[in-house]
Amino acid sequence: MTVSLGEVRAAAERIAGRVRRTPVIEVAPGLTFKLELLQHTGSFKPRGAFNRLLAAKETGELDGQGIVTASGGNAGLAAAYAARELGVRARIFVPVTAPAPKVAKLRTLEAEVVQAGNEYAEAYNAALQARDESGALLLHAYDQPEVVAGQGTVGLELVDQVGAFDTVLVAVGGGGLIAGIATAIGDSVRVVGVEPELAPTLHRALEAGEPTDGPVGGVAADSLGARRLGDLAFEAVRRYDVASLLVGEDAIVAARNELWRDHHVAVEHGAAVAYAALTSGAYKPAPGEQVVVVVCGANTDPATLGQTLAPAGAQD
Amino acid sequence: MTVSLGEVRAAAERIAGRVRRTPVIEVAPGLTFKLELLQHTGSFKPRGAFNRLLAAKETGELDGQGIVTASGGNAGLAAAYAARELGVRARIFVPVTAPAPKVAKLRTLEAEVVQAGNEYAEAYNAALQARDESGALLLHAYDQPEVVAGQGTVGLELVDQVGAFDTVLVAVGGGGLIAGIATAIGDSVRVVGVEPELAPTLHRALEAGEPTDGPVGGVAADSLGARRLGDLAFEAVRRYDVASLLVGEDAIVAARNELWRDHHVAVEHGAAVAYAALTSGAYKPAPGEQVVVVVCGANTDPATLGQTLAPAGAQD
Repeated sequence: MTVSLGEVRAAAERIAGRVRRTPVIEVAPGLTFKLELLQHTGSFKPRGAFNRLLAAKETGELDGQGIVTASGGNAGLAAAYAARELGVRARIFVPVTAPAPKVAKLRTLEAEVVQAGNEYAEAYNAALQARDESGALLLHAYDQPEVVAGQGTVGLELVDQVGAFDTVLVAVGGGGLIAGIATAIGDSVRVVGVEPELAPTLHRALEAGEPTDGPVGGVAADSLGARRLGDLAFEAVRRYDVASLLVGEDAIVAARNELWRDHHVAVEHGAAVAYAALTSGAYKPAPGEQVVVVVCGANTDPATLGQTLAPAGAQD
Repeated sequence: MTVSLGEVRAAAERIAGRVRRTPVIEVAPGLTFKLELLQHTGSFKPRGAFNRLLAAKETGELDGQGIVTASGGNAGLAAAYAARELGVRARIFVPVTAPAPKVAKLRTLEAEVVQAGNEYAEAYNAALQARDESGALLLHAYDQPEVVAGQGTVGLELVDQVGAFDTVLVAVGGGGLIAGIATAIGDSVRVVGVEPELAPTLHRALEAGEPTDGPVGGVAADSLGARRLGDLAFEAVRRYDVASLLVGEDAIVAARNELWRDHHVAVEHGAAVAYAALTSGAYKPAPGEQVVVVVCGANTDPATLGQTLAPAGAQD
């Protein structure tokens, strides 16, 4: 199963007016940030969510049963927001361990929050069961063609906003964003995936020759904590020869602090991962190379900005 | 003494490439934010600083003695940044009571920090004395024509970026920003000044018929803590019939929290003042009215985002 550039273009038309064309700023000669954290709900996820829901509306798959999804994070917020905007019911399945503030935030978006199981996999299974029983539409957090195509609209906007550039650095969790961006512009731009050493889904998939389950942890696990890379993402990273880089915990924390201190952009740890590739030296641009960093999410506790790495478990 | 639209246009040409054309985002139908917090050094102040320095360079007034300025806040950061970029010496005069982190930040920008007196007025007098003794150029925080003209470039950008709109809400301290914006677009757009009840320089000047000294305090005093409105600002607000609104401390804190929670923009209290006019109901747009809010600064401790009003003195 693959996603095509045509599908990304169709997504851009479908979701126009529903999502924000987020700004870019050139922060230094040859270095541009795509401020996707300013997207509705504070991450890029509404792009894929709207595309999935609107495509299903066109085919009649989206009916009174609305949608089900499993996520206590950015994908859940985006699902709730998109469903509310389109006037359909949303049931969001989260583990019973989901933090109370995240559950509360989902409810302010008028979603029904269902707590099921002790971890994400169990919440996901409960969502599948609800879909089977009710006929609701499943919105996956990253591994559905319409979701990947929706996230890919970030890439189309970049070409439009920045013009010609050489490289784009993108954080990888489940891989929906990088798959979409690679599909959109991977023919002409070098796409580099960056992920935490403690949550290396892409790195592991490339080593194994296929997506495999593995442990996830570290400061960025709340947004990049998928257990395995999506199949669509794996197909796209192979097709477009996407590079894979790892960054350590200290580098992520330092990059997040620097984004705030030097650029006045407050982001979640996962959204600092791509920038960390530059600040840590994991990615060294050639002289004159034009680089774009996608700064992709801001669902974070700002009180932790400026802190250094705390003992495991104490981070946001 | 007045500032003309021609001077604002000249400023725009002069500072092009030195300051960032900050993005705008439409956050709701008819409501647009100008994200001037993403300007270099985290506030609009570099616009006026660059214009003052570059204009003085053209006339030969700026020489090896460099500049002097008095400010421990955004104006000082902008002065230091502009001087460093132009390769001239900067001496920044601050009271001995200036917080150590602010002094340290000025020094990272390679400025010489001179601590003089217990409050701003004494530091300012020391700066004047240094100017008289050395022949350095004085950069005022708000009440110089080139400074006002530089800040006015925000208004020119707005017309370019947003197109036609009805109203712009702007925070007022010394009044450099609102004077510049009124000069730039006050003929065609309603310009509304918003200030804290505890630091009402514009309100007091309009009541007295002239700028007068008065007490300043409250959560926003670190950025809007001028003791009196500038003479240039007073002239501009009268010429363009600028409206004056006051907002309370709770409204400022609530607006700042809402900017973060709903829009993922982390700002200093002073930069939430203009938005507070909307969220508190002090300004009620008519149906269909197109409103722009200038979100003008982000030099703040993000750890205080999400807090409610603390006892006096405990706020950032």
